[in-house]
Amino acid sequence: MKATRAVGLALLLKFVGGMAEAQTGKWVLLIHGGAGDIRGEHFTPQYEKKVREELTAALRVGTTILASGGSALDAVEATVRYLEDSPYFNAGRGSVLNISGTIEMDASIMDGATLKAGAVAAVSTVKNPVALARAVMERTPHVLIVGQYADALACKLNIETAPPSYFITEQRLEQFLKKISAEDGGTVGAVALDIKGNVAAGTSTGGLFMKMQGRVGDSPIIGAGTYADNDCGAVSATGQGEYFMRVVAAYAVCTQMRAGASPLQAGEQVLSRIDSLGGKGGFIIVRRDGEWAFVMNTSGMYRGVATSAGLQKVLIFADEK
Amino acid sequence: MKATRAVGLALLLKFVGGMAEAQTGKWVLLIHGGAGDIRGEHFTPQYEKKVREELTAALRVGTTILASGGSALDAVEATVRYLEDSPYFNAGRGSVLNISGTIEMDASIMDGATLKAGAVAAVSTVKNPVALARAVMERTPHVLIVGQYADALACKLNIETAPPSYFITEQRLEQFLKKISAEDGGTVGAVALDIKGNVAAGTSTGGLFMKMQGRVGDSPIIGAGTYADNDCGAVSATGQGEYFMRVVAAYAVCTQMRAGASPLQAGEQVLSRIDSLGGKGGFIIVRRDGEWAFVMNTSGMYRGVATSAGLQKVLIFADEK
Repeated sequence: MKATRAVGLALLLKFVGGMAEAQTGKWVLLIHGGAGDIRGEHFTPQYEKKVREELTAALRVGTTILASGGSALDAVEATVRYLEDSPYFNAGRGSVLNISGTIEMDASIMDGATLKAGAVAAVSTVKNPVALARAVMERTPHVLIVGQYADALACKLNIETAPPSYFITEQRLEQFLKKISAEDGGTVGAVALDIKGNVAAGTSTGGLFMKMQGRVGDSPIIGAGTYADNDCGAVSATGQGEYFMRVVAAYAVCTQMRAGASPLQAGEQVLSRIDSLGGKGGFIIVRRDGEWAFVMNTSGMYRGVATSAGLQKVLIFADEK
Repeated sequence: MKATRAVGLALLLKFVGGMAEAQTGKWVLLIHGGAGDIRGEHFTPQYEKKVREELTAALRVGTTILASGGSALDAVEATVRYLEDSPYFNAGRGSVLNISGTIEMDASIMDGATLKAGAVAAVSTVKNPVALARAVMERTPHVLIVGQYADALACKLNIETAPPSYFITEQRLEQFLKKISAEDGGTVGAVALDIKGNVAAGTSTGGLFMKMQGRVGDSPIIGAGTYADNDCGAVSATGQGEYFMRVVAAYAVCTQMRAGASPLQAGEQVLSRIDSLGGKGGFIIVRRDGEWAFVMNTSGMYRGVATSAGLQKVLIFADEK
């Protein structure tokens, strides 16, 4: 299993002097655009350049919010929205097609300050599923709404919808027609720690290529694909969702951190369990104190990090530092 | 918070002499039919008698399987099916109506030996949602299938369906028309330990009375309403699902047991977190070694236990022993 080492500790030491209980001045943003075996026919130098640009732009969206004192929740939603709008990832526009040649998207968001969470699954018309997930959290008494009723809820709450032609890109249609599985994931997610010490996590996906209609993976499941709790930290997962669901992956990472593990140790421990079941994927993890990690057991994960200490980088391959 | 004390330890000691690693000869079955404030207008002596009879009959179904060497998974499925078929609980026949006056049911099942799991949500035509959940586990590559596509899958897999007139009882219709909330839950579930030392858990529900269409609660969420792992035990939850989802309740109970807590301690710890968020409900819990507990923060929970040591009882109120 490969994993990139967290540099969070150095940043923590740098900031520990002026750190207040409620307001640390420190913020951290991590994003992912899916884990998998990245090198494939479509992975041209031009494609790689474009993906790196998109990840950089997504980081910028969240960074602007966090650096000006905005909330982790707002930063996570805005960042995931950006990635949903980008056709380069398997979420929102650019979602993969299911076995019927249609799209069904899942998303969730969680506020670590309140443990409130919202999620939607198997939606087909919602431009930004993560925005609808947030509306479920804030404007309904529920946590998860699925299928056609989630689409109908979007209309009712004035959340933007779009026709199939918006979501289905030429590349995804070709992939479907040729039955070429894209092995590079593409689920998107973000986790953040804001200057008030609050954490949040969000995840959005088009799911598995050629999945059965109605199939829901880990991304909209609170505890499996997404978890955030100010008592430990925030986690967003990407990979073969069925395995992440069975080990309740994102919550399990939080549990390990609560027991004293570093984000890297916690992520590696849970991923080694997933690996032993035959599953592949990765995590982005930020601990409540700002230490963070990328963890994956794949050859790559589209990912990026930005922090209040001025660190900003975008990575793709597992061995990139 | 009230809780009934586990008597499992005495049984454990009784059996510890002849206990083999893989085959203990010991089995345990726990069931629930929902937690809540049981006393209400409809809770007549006749009703109470009937509910106790139904719980006793459900226990008998699972007991027959476990006592003859059958698997925890089979016992859990058969027991939950019995409770789904009974009109006295909010699952299968007798499900509560949602805000549109229709039914949408959720169910899940998990095999602690393999960590395999299956679940369905927002199905309207499936006679036994737990049977479809098991089919998702065993006959598809997925864990969770939702909505109309889950109903369609039942047809495809020759799993029995039924019209609305089968599911909607006179009592539920009256409750809907008068907008009288039934406060006594009615979600059903079972957990079992079989003589080979394998555990399993299953949960099935019609969800919240007057819920929004498409709303999915904790029952079909692996980790929230249901969890089973031979390394720790099996848990089924009932109550206000949104709170159980936010703390990933069933998995959290397993985590506490893995860290050394008794089933009672583990259940109380997680329920106190749910209680502090404002949520109500309960758990049935069996640990891998056969120790077990009922835990609730409501005035009652329809429940029963049967063990290979000859214990068999059905309880309703929190203070019943």
